Amino acid sequence: MSGMRVYNFSAGPAMLPLEALTVAQSELTDWKSSGMSVLEVSHRGKDFVACAAETESLLREVLGIGENYKVLFLQGGATGQFDAIPMNITAVGDRVDYLNTGQWSVKAIKAAKAQGLDVHVLADQAGSNYTDAPAPGSFTVDPGAAYLHYTPNETIGGVEFSYVPQTGGVPLVADFSSTILSRPINVSDYGLIYAGAQKNMGPSGLCVVIVRDDLLGRARPGTPSVWNYAAMAEADSMLNTPPTFGVYLLGLILKWVVQTGGLTAMAQRNRAKAEALYGFIDASDYYRNPVALDSRSWMNVPFLQANGELDKTFVAEATAAGLTNLAGHRSVGGMRASIYNAMPAEGVQALIDFMTDFERRNG
Amino acid sequence: MSGMRVYNFSAGPAMLPLEALTVAQSELTDWKSSGMSVLEVSHRGKDFVACAAETESLLREVLGIGENYKVLFLQGGATGQFDAIPMNITAVGDRVDYLNTGQWSVKAIKAAKAQGLDVHVLADQAGSNYTDAPAPGSFTVDPGAAYLHYTPNETIGGVEFSYVPQTGGVPLVADFSSTILSRPINVSDYGLIYAGAQKNMGPSGLCVVIVRDDLLGRARPGTPSVWNYAAMAEADSMLNTPPTFGVYLLGLILKWVVQTGGLTAMAQRNRAKAEALYGFIDASDYYRNPVALDSRSWMNVPFLQANGELDKTFVAEATAAGLTNLAGHRSVGGMRASIYNAMPAEGVQALIDFMTDFERRNG
Repeated sequence: MSGMRVYNFSAGPAMLPLEALTVAQSELTDWKSSGMSVLEVSHRGKDFVACAAETESLLREVLGIGENYKVLFLQGGATGQFDAIPMNITAVGDRVDYLNTGQWSVKAIKAAKAQGLDVHVLADQAGSNYTDAPAPGSFTVDPGAAYLHYTPNETIGGVEFSYVPQTGGVPLVADFSSTILSRPINVSDYGLIYAGAQKNMGPSGLCVVIVRDDLLGRARPGTPSVWNYAAMAEADSMLNTPPTFGVYLLGLILKWVVQTGGLTAMAQRNRAKAEALYGFIDASDYYRNPVALDSRSWMNVPFLQANGELDKTFVAEATAAGLTNLAGHRSVGGMRASIYNAMPAEGVQALIDFMTDFERRNG
Repeated sequence: MSGMRVYNFSAGPAMLPLEALTVAQSELTDWKSSGMSVLEVSHRGKDFVACAAETESLLREVLGIGENYKVLFLQGGATGQFDAIPMNITAVGDRVDYLNTGQWSVKAIKAAKAQGLDVHVLADQAGSNYTDAPAPGSFTVDPGAAYLHYTPNETIGGVEFSYVPQTGGVPLVADFSSTILSRPINVSDYGLIYAGAQKNMGPSGLCVVIVRDDLLGRARPGTPSVWNYAAMAEADSMLNTPPTFGVYLLGLILKWVVQTGGLTAMAQRNRAKAEALYGFIDASDYYRNPVALDSRSWMNVPFLQANGELDKTFVAEATAAGLTNLAGHRSVGGMRASIYNAMPAEGVQALIDFMTDFERRNG
């Protein structure tokens, strides 16, 4: 397999567009004819400051981020934000509302409680074993809540909201880690969007926070400076040294998003990939996806086979065929195909072909 | 200058060994013949788990880290640890002792106060305009202090301790960001060592924490999970997705350290580089270094020229000559040459030659 790229279905860190990786590779020892790697330049030098500004500008353009939002490049992942969000926009004892649709929601809720908040779980999908999102209108946000938090896409369960929760004016906070950049969104629906980069945006170690201006300036005393939204906004995310390579690579990936038609085209491709894979699974008597039809993720497709004892065989044979990282999350079992932006339609078709053959031989 | 590497005197992110960068470049789209970049693989996959374990093992070997210490790969930089250290190993109101030798000490002290600690600054070198470390024995650590914190090397002022502070058993906590791996140290002198990677260890976005076992398990309620030392130690630094590329690149750099003779040889080279540059500056009537002889940094050499109005000219002409990032920190002015591990002796000699010529033309 040396020298040959595989179809990598990892849930994250995940497949990245070869176009962006190739640019990064070509200039890894000599960036912009500077005689230095982008890894070696000062974050306060004009070249990197311009690089970070371009990345932010591209993200604003691609997502349609209004002037009343700050874009922050932080560290600590989405998991860090589980704590940082309460620290920044609540006081101890505040009521906050959460929707629980899976393991990432559970972790966010646990952190909010640890930060001293009065957490109300308005919808708890544990009862369905996390196979669906709550129905629109099935929950009511408390007008006094500091925010409503939800996870638009649960990476592990493969559950995605097909709608934006209504909050009646309460700020909506969303962990977009595994669905950001997969389709157009209305940023103005949200008070705060956050996302670890390691699915659709680049390498791990970079977390993007998009926060509406009115939520700034409320940080609790003792909020770590590197997570203080107002301080970081004031410092253009350079209060300390940012994860420079991540910011640079996000810029390359955003250029690829623009060159391939932006988020409208991305959504068309992602929808087609997902429909092809779900369509095949649904038509099969051998494979099945446990998620409700209206809650199926475009990005993460868990599936089970009739003979679960063959899961390791499936994964091993798929790997040998150049279809890698298809083992399901240890908490769910079975298989999972993560088909992020960088996964081409050909990769999904190759998976379907393999699944067809595997069923023929084992079904 | 295209295609030609320069001598990069940046204070950080800083020059990295070309040997490590070249390996990273060669496998950036296909790591270990996997058909995937190291940027694209799951942190929980066996390949990356082995990579992280090898990096930790190399770091333990190179630094001589005992079994009673945990090695953590965290995010948020040393600045994040300014808050995380108090959260992890103190209670609100505890007495802690700090030595103030420059701007990084000042920031650490400010964060400790924000975390509700009773901060005592045992030695404040602001009086010397941060041009020296306190003399050994000139301060006494309170036996009841939770720890003594100091900054072995101040990146901005170019002030380095030539000794390890005695604490009488109080845990010693040290920000080694700009001097780690530059020479052998006795890890057993310390309760906690932390360091941002972006000087001698790799890219920004990775922070290494080396913490003695007896300091674990004291975290305050609400300590963010990604900075909870005990929880991170339990999870092999993978409670959430680590900065995978940084861990990988640190491994490559540690291999280079080993291949070039380890820290004893590194110290010999660094001492020789520093002595050459300070020797030249001291022998000159035109240049000067403001730092006390016994406190001069091997890593960061600030210097002034007699005609300060020529500073911009100096920096511009040096850049044109392939000697980059020599502007002094904005708070100090003048020039600064950071000569970390990856700066070869030839680079220091090229700087001395340029300084000689510049003085001849302008002195």
